[in-house]
Amino acid sequence: MKVHLRKKIANRVASGHPWIFANEVDKVEGTPEPGAIVDVFYGDGKFCGKGYYNQQSQIMVRLLTREKNVEINDEFFLNKIRQCWDYRQKLGYSENCRLVFGEADGLPQLIIDKFNDYFVIQTLALGIDLWKPALVKALETVFKPKGIYERNDVPVRELEGLPQQKGFLSQPFDTKIVINENGLKFHVDLENGQKTGYFLDQQDNRRAIQNIVKGADVLGAFTYTGTFEIHAGFYGAKSVLGLDISDNAVAQANRNAALNGLEDVVKFESANAFDVLKQWGKEGKKWDVVMLDPPAFTKSRANIQKAITGYKEINLRGMKLVKPGGFLVTSSCTNLVQAKLFLEIIEMAAKDARRPIRQVTFQAQSADHPIVWGMENTHYLKFLIVQVG
Amino acid sequence: MKVHLRKKIANRVASGHPWIFANEVDKVEGTPEPGAIVDVFYGDGKFCGKGYYNQQSQIMVRLLTREKNVEINDEFFLNKIRQCWDYRQKLGYSENCRLVFGEADGLPQLIIDKFNDYFVIQTLALGIDLWKPALVKALETVFKPKGIYERNDVPVRELEGLPQQKGFLSQPFDTKIVINENGLKFHVDLENGQKTGYFLDQQDNRRAIQNIVKGADVLGAFTYTGTFEIHAGFYGAKSVLGLDISDNAVAQANRNAALNGLEDVVKFESANAFDVLKQWGKEGKKWDVVMLDPPAFTKSRANIQKAITGYKEINLRGMKLVKPGGFLVTSSCTNLVQAKLFLEIIEMAAKDARRPIRQVTFQAQSADHPIVWGMENTHYLKFLIVQVG
Repeated sequence: MKVHLRKKIANRVASGHPWIFANEVDKVEGTPEPGAIVDVFYGDGKFCGKGYYNQQSQIMVRLLTREKNVEINDEFFLNKIRQCWDYRQKLGYSENCRLVFGEADGLPQLIIDKFNDYFVIQTLALGIDLWKPALVKALETVFKPKGIYERNDVPVRELEGLPQQKGFLSQPFDTKIVINENGLKFHVDLENGQKTGYFLDQQDNRRAIQNIVKGADVLGAFTYTGTFEIHAGFYGAKSVLGLDISDNAVAQANRNAALNGLEDVVKFESANAFDVLKQWGKEGKKWDVVMLDPPAFTKSRANIQKAITGYKEINLRGMKLVKPGGFLVTSSCTNLVQAKLFLEIIEMAAKDARRPIRQVTFQAQSADHPIVWGMENTHYLKFLIVQVG
Repeated sequence: MKVHLRKKIANRVASGHPWIFANEVDKVEGTPEPGAIVDVFYGDGKFCGKGYYNQQSQIMVRLLTREKNVEINDEFFLNKIRQCWDYRQKLGYSENCRLVFGEADGLPQLIIDKFNDYFVIQTLALGIDLWKPALVKALETVFKPKGIYERNDVPVRELEGLPQQKGFLSQPFDTKIVINENGLKFHVDLENGQKTGYFLDQQDNRRAIQNIVKGADVLGAFTYTGTFEIHAGFYGAKSVLGLDISDNAVAQANRNAALNGLEDVVKFESANAFDVLKQWGKEGKKWDVVMLDPPAFTKSRANIQKAITGYKEINLRGMKLVKPGGFLVTSSCTNLVQAKLFLEIIEMAAKDARRPIRQVTFQAQSADHPIVWGMENTHYLKFLIVQVG
C-alpha cells in the first residue's frame, strides 16, 4: 500500500519527525486496513519511509523506518528492542529503566518500562497495538521476563479507536513488586499505580538532592509514593515531611519509608498542598529544603494559562517556606510548559516572593528517556534546584 | 560619597544586577577616589545599594550590597567568604571548589578557587583589588591555608587601569600541587597553569561520562592536562587517545595519566585537532566516544561568527568519527554562545554530518559556579552528551 505526500509539506518530516498528518497526504493508493504498514513517498516521488496507517487518526501515518529495504516484521521489532536495551545499558541502567520511549526510540506511541524482571507495555496507537504479540515475543527472547503487563488504560487510545484496557500479556503474576533504586527499595503496583506504576523519569534527578538534604529539615509536596522524600531520608535529612492529597498514595509512601527502615525520619500525611503551604507561609514556618513535584495542571494547550498559574502559585508558596540560604527543588512534567517558560514561571514566583534565587541544577528527565530535538514532546520533564536567598 | 542614578535606567539594576554603567549616572557628589565605596541612590532618591566606584571603567559602580545598614569593611568580606563556603559545603564540595564566583556570589569581579589547602585569587576590578588584604585575612581566618596565590595575569584588568601581575599573597610555597578529584589525582600548576591553574568548572561534568566510556575506545580533543581522558580511563575505557596542540599540556597530561597508573590505557599526543580530525574522517576512522572541549574561539561579541563557525566545524568533524550508536561529548565555555545557540550549532553540525542525534545529558558548569538568571555571564559553560546514530 502506498501513501503519497503533497508537494509542499512541513520540513518536519524530512528532518526526521515520524508523524504525517492527514492534511499532508495527497493520495492513498488502495484502501489500507486500519493499522496496516504503508510505504510513504514524497510529492516528487522519492521514497520517504514506512509506517503504520490509521485513517481514523489526525496523524494518518507514523513512520517506523526511513530505510526502503527494511521489512516491518517480528524481526524488525526484535532488533529495535535490542537496540533500545543496548542504549540503556550503555548509560548504566540495569534493573529498571524506560526501555522504549516512543518516538524518541523510533517506535511511535510505544512505551515499555522495565522493572527488574517485569515489563509494562503501553501501545497508544492502533498501528503499534497490532504488533503487541511481536513485542511480547521480543521481550521474551531478550529478557526471559517473569511477567509482562499491559497498561493501556489511557484515554488517548480512544482517539485511535482503541479501547482502554489493562491485563496480563504473560502468565498471570503478582503485580505488586519491589524494585531497587539508588540503594533503596520501593513498592510498585504495576496494575493500579499511576501511568506504568512508577515514575522512572525522575530516577536520575532523585540523586541530585543527595548533598543539599544532609542534616536538613525537608518538606515535600505532591509526593505520590514518596520516592524523593525517602531518598532525602536516606541521604541524611534530619526530618522529612511529605504531603499528598491521596490517602492511598500516603499509605504507600509510609509503607515505602518503613520498607527502608526510615519511618522515624520520613513521614507522610494526606493534605491539599496548595492550602497547607499557604497556611504555613502565613504562620512563618520554614524548612531547609522544600521539594515540589506537582502534576501537569492541564492536558491541553488551550488551557496552558491554567498550568502557568498553577506552577507559579505553588512555587511561590513553596519558596516562602524556604529558610534563607536553603533550597527549592521543583519539577514540571508537562511538555506544554517547555523549559524556557518553566524558568520564567519560577522567576515570576521568586519576584512575587521577594526572594533572590540562584540556579544550582537544571535537568530534564532521566537519560533512559532520550530527547530528540524537534520532537517537543520528548523533552517534557524539567527538574530545577535553586538556592533561595 | 554618593552616586545618583538617572530617573530612567534599565530595569537590570532594580532586578538585582550589580553593574551600574557610567551613562546611567546622573551625578556624583564629591570626587570619590578610584575604587572607593559609594552609596548609590535611584533617581527618585531611594537608596539603591553600596558598591565600589571607578570613574575609569565603563562600569562606574559595582554593587556589593543592597542593604543600607551593612558596612563594607573587613568583616563584610569575612562574612561573605563564610557564606560562600557554606554554600559550597551544602552542595557537597570539600577539597576543591570555586569558592567565590564573582557577581553570582555578590562579590563582583572576584574569583577565588580552593585547591585543598591552597587558594588562588583573581581581583579583576580596582574596587575589589583594594580589598585584597581583607580577603587574604578572611581566608586565613576561615581556612588556615597553606598558601594563597594571586593570578592577576589577566588582560581584563587593564580596562580598570590595573597592572597584570601574579605572585604570593602568603608565605611562598611550592605552587606545583596535587589535587584529588572524583577518586583521581591531578597535578596542578597554580603559577603557570591556565586561568587559576585548573578547570574546576567541569568537575561535575567529568563524572557524567562514567557509563558511556565503559569498554569504549575514546578520542579526546583539546584535552589540556587530560582530565576528561583520565576520567575515561578510570571509568573503564578500553583505550583513550587525547590530543592537544600544546606540547606542555600533553606532557602534563601524560604525567597525570602516570600519576593514576593509567598510562597504558590513556595516551596523549600533540596535534592540531582541526587538521587531524578532518584527516581521520577521510580515512574512515571511528571511535565509540569522541570528546571535545575546545577553547572559546573568540573573546568579543563582534567576532561571534568566528566562534559559531569554529564550534560547528569541530563538532562536525568530531561527529563523523563516532561509530553508529556511539556518543559525542561536547562543551563550549564562552558566555558569548548561550545555551540555545550552542544547541543550534550542534544541530547544524549533525545535519551536515548526516547523522541523527539524541540528547542524553545537557548541563552547565559545576554547581559551585551558581547561575544567576539575568546575569548572562554567570551561565557560560555548556556540556552536552548526544548519541550519534
